[in-house]
Amino acid sequence: MTRPLGVGLAGLGTVGGGVLALLRANAEIVAARAGRPVVVTAVAARERGRDRGVSLEGLRWFDDPAALAADPAIDVVVEVIGGADGVAHATVQAAIAAGKPVVTANKALLAVHGAALAAAAERAGVPLAFEAAVAGGIPVIKAVREGLAGNRISRVAGILNGTCNYILTVMRERGREFADVLAEAQKLGYAEADPGIDVDGIDAAHKLAILAALAFGRPVAFEAVHVEGIRNVSALDIAFAGTLGYRIKLLGIARRQEGGIEARVHPCMVPEASPLARVDGVFNAVVAECDFAGQVTLEGRGAGAGPTASAVVADLIDIARGRFTPVWGAQSGALSDAASVPMAAHVGAYYLRLMVVDRPGVIADVTAILRDGGVSLESMLQRGRSPGEAVPVVLVTHETRESAMREALARIAALDAVLEEPAVIRIEPA
Amino acid sequence: MTRPLGVGLAGLGTVGGGVLALLRANAEIVAARAGRPVVVTAVAARERGRDRGVSLEGLRWFDDPAALAADPAIDVVVEVIGGADGVAHATVQAAIAAGKPVVTANKALLAVHGAALAAAAERAGVPLAFEAAVAGGIPVIKAVREGLAGNRISRVAGILNGTCNYILTVMRERGREFADVLAEAQKLGYAEADPGIDVDGIDAAHKLAILAALAFGRPVAFEAVHVEGIRNVSALDIAFAGTLGYRIKLLGIARRQEGGIEARVHPCMVPEASPLARVDGVFNAVVAECDFAGQVTLEGRGAGAGPTASAVVADLIDIARGRFTPVWGAQSGALSDAASVPMAAHVGAYYLRLMVVDRPGVIADVTAILRDGGVSLESMLQRGRSPGEAVPVVLVTHETRESAMREALARIAALDAVLEEPAVIRIEPA
Repeated sequence: MTRPLGVGLAGLGTVGGGVLALLRANAEIVAARAGRPVVVTAVAARERGRDRGVSLEGLRWFDDPAALAADPAIDVVVEVIGGADGVAHATVQAAIAAGKPVVTANKALLAVHGAALAAAAERAGVPLAFEAAVAGGIPVIKAVREGLAGNRISRVAGILNGTCNYILTVMRERGREFADVLAEAQKLGYAEADPGIDVDGIDAAHKLAILAALAFGRPVAFEAVHVEGIRNVSALDIAFAGTLGYRIKLLGIARRQEGGIEARVHPCMVPEASPLARVDGVFNAVVAECDFAGQVTLEGRGAGAGPTASAVVADLIDIARGRFTPVWGAQSGALSDAASVPMAAHVGAYYLRLMVVDRPGVIADVTAILRDGGVSLESMLQRGRSPGEAVPVVLVTHETRESAMREALARIAALDAVLEEPAVIRIEPA
Repeated sequence: MTRPLGVGLAGLGTVGGGVLALLRANAEIVAARAGRPVVVTAVAARERGRDRGVSLEGLRWFDDPAALAADPAIDVVVEVIGGADGVAHATVQAAIAAGKPVVTANKALLAVHGAALAAAAERAGVPLAFEAAVAGGIPVIKAVREGLAGNRISRVAGILNGTCNYILTVMRERGREFADVLAEAQKLGYAEADPGIDVDGIDAAHKLAILAALAFGRPVAFEAVHVEGIRNVSALDIAFAGTLGYRIKLLGIARRQEGGIEARVHPCMVPEASPLARVDGVFNAVVAECDFAGQVTLEGRGAGAGPTASAVVADLIDIARGRFTPVWGAQSGALSDAASVPMAAHVGAYYLRLMVVDRPGVIADVTAILRDGGVSLESMLQRGRSPGEAVPVVLVTHETRESAMREALARIAALDAVLEEPAVIRIEPA
């Protein structure tokens, strides 16, 4: 065995504690697989005194993680502070500037600053590893960037946020509404007090931006991702989805299209038999469609101390072994310059649910607007009759262009007999 | 870009043709990800004249693959001849002896000679890569050996043979018997004319032996794998499985046990909600239970030209990039010497189906034998009544030791009222 790989750990929250715990519990396994011991020698965090349930004895302490990153006695810097800017960003920049390999679990940082950081890492000739940034314990970065590297990937789609998947699962199983389930999830610790980054789709969009960059071999482009969250998903639409043979999931999808790459996060109706439909609770999953390998699905735990630590340590073992992969899978000169396709150009099928006054002529008005907009219907569902009252009407379209759908929807929403903002959920093949 | 990686391709069957096709179709993608072009420069096969649907123009031809393996102009040897012995074995040995990296899709070779070949590769300091040997297009070798490398794995289980999974799926969906579905699968080309290596579980056992070696960090031990195939699975047992909330799957399972590692391939009853139960048709899937990452599932196409070529090329890209991993995940000195636990020591629940004469006292006799053998029952199922006729009786046991089960079964089979060899299927949690 050669000299231990000395790790500087910046951040001692849930993930940092998990990394310390794993490297201690599985020291022998890690040393065998890494070809040398992997040992945390220094840590940096805000509050020195706090009890974190792991011993910090014998570890050098830094109040400033950027100082830790620049310390010559440290071989690799693990950044598990979090946040796209501020101290996390400064730490990763300092480590690269000091010529040190970096392992980060920070999806926000990579989504927002990943293109610049990757360029800096390439100039410095150091690895910037981030298996933990997407789908936690599932080795999806490695699978897409190395395991499927021979393929032209046409589409990646995934359940990338466990909080949203948990909320949607409970809504379906118990027939409850979003706000109600969110409040309970917050009480149970499954959702943050400030849940926006999860339920508004931002966290999933960070991860999708990274996945898309790897799948299509181009620098990350977070600003081009279309993002919608799950706040508007209702128990009624989940029930209708079941009737139609679908499940509603928040998916991140990136797809090779005519004209470039489409990337979007929004609630989707997926067929009950598709691999992603069956992934429930806090689990994450990713499907990659490959020209030679076919459809490959990976499923597992997307968050938590253990799964995230597993991913961080896999990166450390790669670094200890000298296994190097460029950030986006290829050197900057060999990356694709495929354009990002705007959401208005998206083509797909749509589920529409209207609340309309039950009186003659309403359906004729709605279907006339759709016809005039070039939107063709696959099916319509109207349940029960309550003359003069509000009733739900469900329409499923054939493949339609998003821009046409939006125009038709604006006209439909303006009809007197349409009582609420129409509910719209895109239908995805898997 | 540096000099191309020159590949010598030994074997031009389905897989060899797929490798040629992929490296041509995706040459640009592969070059970007490999950091240099990856080009087949020489091929070896038996019949030079045969039309393989791919052009061999400009490629050097070798009648003897071992001569190709030793040729100094070749950088890497891809062995896709197949078979544990003979020419495939000689080719891989020749390549290692010549100091060349080897990529092989040959599970039989690795299962039978893998320990010796890995030792030879380590002495020669060359990679011996085999992503294609297990589960085709699913990057499961990479996931277990690198992506989950920080974990102590307690269990790997998988659907590792697409032919068996296809047959079992059709038997369940159409209520048909094994022999009937096998004959049809042979006509459709989904099963070999000589189907034994698939339906008797040998192919799955080869793959399980490899997976177990990686999961537990020890040299491959094929001879210690307990192997049963699917010939005795009946439509009646598949129907009873459904009644009880199970699916019958041929699984390969390796598990860390008291005393060592248990490795076995046999038909299993798995709960309908478990990830492997839902994998149907020719698809393969592998579940790994990890101490930190939790349960990770990978699913995809386990065979065929495209998926297998995808795996071979992933290995070639690793080699082009200089990414090296020891064969069993760690250098020989750091491998585990965990013992293999014999099947007689297996502990689990059992499904038993007896055909008994419907007369008073039979069930009392059967249950007395089980009680005397220390086998405790979870449930019993007897459908319909036909006094004096043969009726099926289904028994499900609690956790039982295999040796106790076998003794009790021998006594039960010897009862006058028991008309056929009892059907026994082990129950697996997932």
